[in-house]
Amino acid sequence: MAEVSRRAPDSPGNGRSVIGVDLGGTLIRAALSNRRGEIVDRHEIHTLAQEGVSAVLDRITGLIGELAGQYPGVAAVGIGCPGPLDSKTGVVYSPPAFPTWHDLPLARIVQERTGIPSSVGNDANVAALGEFEYGAGRDVRHLVYITVSTGVGGGVIVDGLLLEGQRGFAGEIGHTILEPEGPLCGCGGRGHVEALASGTAIAREAREALDAGRESVIGEMAGEEGVTARTVAAAAERGDELGRELIQAAGRWLGYAMINVVHLFNPQMIVIGGGVSQAGDLLLEPLRETLFDGLMPVFEEDLHIVPPGLGVDAGLYGAVALARRTAASS
Amino acid sequence: MAEVSRRAPDSPGNGRSVIGVDLGGTLIRAALSNRRGEIVDRHEIHTLAQEGVSAVLDRITGLIGELAGQYPGVAAVGIGCPGPLDSKTGVVYSPPAFPTWHDLPLARIVQERTGIPSSVGNDANVAALGEFEYGAGRDVRHLVYITVSTGVGGGVIVDGLLLEGQRGFAGEIGHTILEPEGPLCGCGGRGHVEALASGTAIAREAREALDAGRESVIGEMAGEEGVTARTVAAAAERGDELGRELIQAAGRWLGYAMINVVHLFNPQMIVIGGGVSQAGDLLLEPLRETLFDGLMPVFEEDLHIVPPGLGVDAGLYGAVALARRTAASS
Repeated sequence: MAEVSRRAPDSPGNGRSVIGVDLGGTLIRAALSNRRGEIVDRHEIHTLAQEGVSAVLDRITGLIGELAGQYPGVAAVGIGCPGPLDSKTGVVYSPPAFPTWHDLPLARIVQERTGIPSSVGNDANVAALGEFEYGAGRDVRHLVYITVSTGVGGGVIVDGLLLEGQRGFAGEIGHTILEPEGPLCGCGGRGHVEALASGTAIAREAREALDAGRESVIGEMAGEEGVTARTVAAAAERGDELGRELIQAAGRWLGYAMINVVHLFNPQMIVIGGGVSQAGDLLLEPLRETLFDGLMPVFEEDLHIVPPGLGVDAGLYGAVALARRTAASS
Repeated sequence: MAEVSRRAPDSPGNGRSVIGVDLGGTLIRAALSNRRGEIVDRHEIHTLAQEGVSAVLDRITGLIGELAGQYPGVAAVGIGCPGPLDSKTGVVYSPPAFPTWHDLPLARIVQERTGIPSSVGNDANVAALGEFEYGAGRDVRHLVYITVSTGVGGGVIVDGLLLEGQRGFAGEIGHTILEPEGPLCGCGGRGHVEALASGTAIAREAREALDAGRESVIGEMAGEEGVTARTVAAAAERGDELGRELIQAAGRWLGYAMINVVHLFNPQMIVIGGGVSQAGDLLLEPLRETLFDGLMPVFEEDLHIVPPGLGVDAGLYGAVALARRTAASS
């Protein structure tokens, strides 16, 4: 089979400039790509989760307006947004990151206000697209992206296309089960990857161990916000035994999760990002060991486990990639 | 989004007749479709797993020759075959069903012998394609197929395309982990769906319970081949408590497996086939209950759990669908 390049500058949307918007709970960032897919300008603005819907919408359309005003002829807007959301209709449900949002038709509103065709994607899915088009995955066609921070998010590229499913909810790696009777997940399920290996899970395990009288410097190291995964990682780095155990255990759970993902998708590359992944080898070594120990041999060939190529910009570049795909199909 | 029909007669390959071959350990079946994608003739022949490679190849090419001789102008051959195999290269590794096969370039050999472009796909993946094009999934675009028999196989249709991954190994639902320290799987892993819910697993659990002195009619009902999943299901049907528990437990494990699959693929339909699924509601009720209890609510909408539309013909029709796709791309 001929290897067709789909990443910028040859990716869909070639020939028109577009705007990508990365919408977070505290920061909105926007970038403009020229018709070759290169990012040529970017703006950002802080926001507050408590702000009402219309204030956030004003900020989004303001940023788009600034960029579109400087570079006329923008063909599409792509927005990466915390889910759950329906990427087919562009409706955002009730994301924990925006407590005042309910069934918001974000794509339609932005399109009406700006006059530019707009689409919306789940932030982790969009970040996967970013790594695929602009980051670590530029030379592959089958990629899995996982981000491990407060929660665990995921996105999957199948033969160059973003896996969305019937309504754009696909790729919820954080909500796959590894232990049916395991700890409660934020979503109400039990034993999900997010309930076992996220920053929230690591902090919970640390607090439970401390409460049970386990010896550790984690308690002393905790700041005003109490014990966090960051505290645990910092303690582990100092050699604290409990901290090391907890980070390693999270790595093993992620390794099991990746076995399932590899057996289902047969990818060429897994990109592991997010704050928790910055714990480095203490997390990644048990992850790799568990993964390669548990894979059926044929799946190991040409499988690469890598850090993100774009860091915190994966979502922003992914939003540009989403916009380019929107431009190509509109 | 416009709903594009990809199933026969409008599916890829439209306009040319093709041959599909369903290759099993004891039976080889072949079917010919006309240029509208309709099956117009079929032949079958018994084979023996112990037969050497060349005897089986002779039978395959013989069947193809018979059909191609009657209907000149055949554009492609598609073959569904027990894996593991590389669907990109058409090389079959060492399938348990054909103990004498090792790294056999099946697609190339058939193509050379018949002069017709040929491709090979994993049998469960090909059956998924059959249900999608000709069976239960004719009106959907996102489908998961799972077959529960001696083993547990799977195949996934993503937006009308068969999920293959980088080398065609994708869709191994049977080898996803639900219990990292669980029972040993035939593949060497632990706690895989196949080790928890296949016919082999059900029979193993029954034997262990009987050995431990558990009261049950299963022991008496076992035939010459010893306790099988069929014995367990038959006992359960008679009201045997152990039999009922084991079938229900398998249903719950399959329910957990389906939660993971739905959270990853957001499908419209799950087709559940294979001999074990014929245990009916005793298996399917706990499966559905576990699944819908554990799904995040947005994933439940428009999700249908259905039996196969084609029964044992899924693989044969799927091989025809594979051939039509091969014809369309060659």
